[in-house]
Amino acid sequence: MSEFAAVDVIRAKRDGHTLSDAQIDWVLDAYTKGVVADEQMSALAMAILLRGMTPGEIARWTAAMIASGERLDLSAVTRPTVDKHSTGGVGDKITLPLTPLVAACGAAVPQLSGRGLGHTGGTLDKLESIPGWRARLGNDEFVSQLRDVGAVICAAGEGLAPADRKLYALRDVTGTVEAIPLIASSIMSKKIAEGTGALVLDVKVGTGAFMKDLAAARELASTMVELGKAHGVNTVALLTDMNTPLGRTVGNAVEVEESLEVLAGGGPADVVELTLALAREMLAAAGIDADPARVLASGAAMDSWKAMIRAQGGDPDAPLPTARETEVLRAAEDGVVEAVDALEIGLAAWRLGAGRARKEDPVSFGAGVVLKVRPGDSVRAGDVLLELRTDDPGRIPAARDTAAGAIRIGESAPTHGRLLIDRIA
Amino acid sequence: MSEFAAVDVIRAKRDGHTLSDAQIDWVLDAYTKGVVADEQMSALAMAILLRGMTPGEIARWTAAMIASGERLDLSAVTRPTVDKHSTGGVGDKITLPLTPLVAACGAAVPQLSGRGLGHTGGTLDKLESIPGWRARLGNDEFVSQLRDVGAVICAAGEGLAPADRKLYALRDVTGTVEAIPLIASSIMSKKIAEGTGALVLDVKVGTGAFMKDLAAARELASTMVELGKAHGVNTVALLTDMNTPLGRTVGNAVEVEESLEVLAGGGPADVVELTLALAREMLAAAGIDADPARVLASGAAMDSWKAMIRAQGGDPDAPLPTARETEVLRAAEDGVVEAVDALEIGLAAWRLGAGRARKEDPVSFGAGVVLKVRPGDSVRAGDVLLELRTDDPGRIPAARDTAAGAIRIGESAPTHGRLLIDRIA
Repeated sequence: MSEFAAVDVIRAKRDGHTLSDAQIDWVLDAYTKGVVADEQMSALAMAILLRGMTPGEIARWTAAMIASGERLDLSAVTRPTVDKHSTGGVGDKITLPLTPLVAACGAAVPQLSGRGLGHTGGTLDKLESIPGWRARLGNDEFVSQLRDVGAVICAAGEGLAPADRKLYALRDVTGTVEAIPLIASSIMSKKIAEGTGALVLDVKVGTGAFMKDLAAARELASTMVELGKAHGVNTVALLTDMNTPLGRTVGNAVEVEESLEVLAGGGPADVVELTLALAREMLAAAGIDADPARVLASGAAMDSWKAMIRAQGGDPDAPLPTARETEVLRAAEDGVVEAVDALEIGLAAWRLGAGRARKEDPVSFGAGVVLKVRPGDSVRAGDVLLELRTDDPGRIPAARDTAAGAIRIGESAPTHGRLLIDRIA
Repeated sequence: MSEFAAVDVIRAKRDGHTLSDAQIDWVLDAYTKGVVADEQMSALAMAILLRGMTPGEIARWTAAMIASGERLDLSAVTRPTVDKHSTGGVGDKITLPLTPLVAACGAAVPQLSGRGLGHTGGTLDKLESIPGWRARLGNDEFVSQLRDVGAVICAAGEGLAPADRKLYALRDVTGTVEAIPLIASSIMSKKIAEGTGALVLDVKVGTGAFMKDLAAARELASTMVELGKAHGVNTVALLTDMNTPLGRTVGNAVEVEESLEVLAGGGPADVVELTLALAREMLAAAGIDADPARVLASGAAMDSWKAMIRAQGGDPDAPLPTARETEVLRAAEDGVVEAVDALEIGLAAWRLGAGRARKEDPVSFGAGVVLKVRPGDSVRAGDVLLELRTDDPGRIPAARDTAAGAIRIGESAPTHGRLLIDRIA
């Protein structure tokens, strides 16, 4: 195609037309190769965000992103493969107990994860708080750990959907993250290229999620389920609440600790509920008849966790990092906790150093927020509502202000919203 | 502002909000300095194109672009200053006879022009076909020629509205040219920074113009007139037809030749009509009581032309370049010329080498199209409809196909559209 092709593609989408298969294939290939410049792709991404895409366009866009790189071959893995992806929430450590649990039930879980950016944490950042653990595996290491241990959580390799890797970084700095076609194709291109046979999506909706309203979350979920099916991946989505943080911890090491409680048979009720719900969906999608609650109670999931951590160089028995400073926030009055806002708790943890502002920033492993109350709890003036943990005391004032705004104390208990909102298959 | 400011500005416009003065000032300053990246500005430009801007936003955006560079001081010029700007059309050589004509009537005309890109030609490309003539003048040269000769046509200096210079190049490759707020602010920031006291705008509408429909052209014209007035520039706009090329020549040297015919008292009726109409508006805006038709007939405009060309190193009496190859297109049947499509004739001239595909490309001075018929003319099969001129015979087949599609021959004369459609003041 001529040098005008990029502008032609941008103008077509800008004017509300449907892009042809050839246009989509060309623009993603040319972008991956650097022929289409970042400033052209960001204009196209904004046009896609504001004009939308048809299901046919989204399917082709996803296929072209997969085709930009390699596809992993998991045929050496004899167990059924099933993966899970969450669209990201506050305190969402579910991948940590879920992956070894589902592996302990007989599936192989090829979990390629990401790092946190903004107010939502990243699974790899959490696991890196474990001494010695490494996120990067070669493709051969990935496949053999999946075969031998049944559980892998690691960074996606450079060769997987490189068009998405480049586009994801671009969207982050150009205000073009929140486009359903781009979110769906980004997630699904990586999951399909990773080679999993089945996939369960945890689509978050609420203040702490990218999707603030149910209709948008439902559209994203259906779009991804259709994309998965079209590529032969048995895909199911759960819509789950993200108005309140999951569990009592938001950060890195503190979330690992909470995950270990779940694997030991304890842990907060909502984390256990969601872990088991997702495990049941994953096992059903993989065609495995097992009861994850029984496997969890048996201790087999904890054994699987330890094997998984050791296989990636980590010491599962080493003490986890703690933050240098802890400050508590206390209730100013008697009452009932009406709400604990996920977005503001996420921002407070981020301000304490648990998250990063730019992708090259380091995170603090010990930093984060530990919630001492949940919606519905009664409190007296002076009771501790939450702990703020950080390595840098200078970060406390701003984090405290944000956290204080997150907790609403009133006179009556809230009507409990459901954690599991809907299922789309 | 923080490093998140660019994304915040993009998201605000993307979501349909009005940008604050501080956001506009910051984003244009930061873009000029390279703090805001090209891929961020192109996403913002696309959001502006699709979401629009309020009059207040456009005014502030224009002011910020002016403030990004220097403003010329024309106080050394004692004659009233008045400039003209055309939004670009096919065969639009009007600046060439108009500038010396208005100067000969007693005004000073500070005409900063551009180069062609795409199917519309550039005034500087046309003038560069004159041996020796140079487009670049220093600010001091510009002011002294304006004072001494009264007429200057040259390239805008690097110091004038640098934010616009950078943004214009970006818009061209990112499909974000056709946004009225961006077109209006781009034109007006340069004209206001140039220091002219009055301005007449020739807003083209039709197949060969950027504005294809009258409502959009009218909105662009009013936007620019308001911007000019807000900055103390007495501004008037004419809306003129661009469904048919202006005159009989489309190219570079061929358009200079036609302009010389006009200055010599001849030339095509439409070119003369539009030149005189714009001259009358410019003189009225400058407060000068003169009859441009009489001045044109007197030969004073031709004298002014020669002085202007000589002042910039050109030889007004030297022969102009001609193309190496000429091919004619003949009528296939008897009939009446119903239409000569401006866009397709412009594209044919561009394909022959008169225009450029990328801004670093050279143009061919001799290349272009010479029309032998106009709408309403009767033709017999075999009559010459137009000449295709080029230095590169390989360009002829594609240009001939395009040109053939431009001329529609039928049975009845077209109802003549008006050249002057409206006036907005």
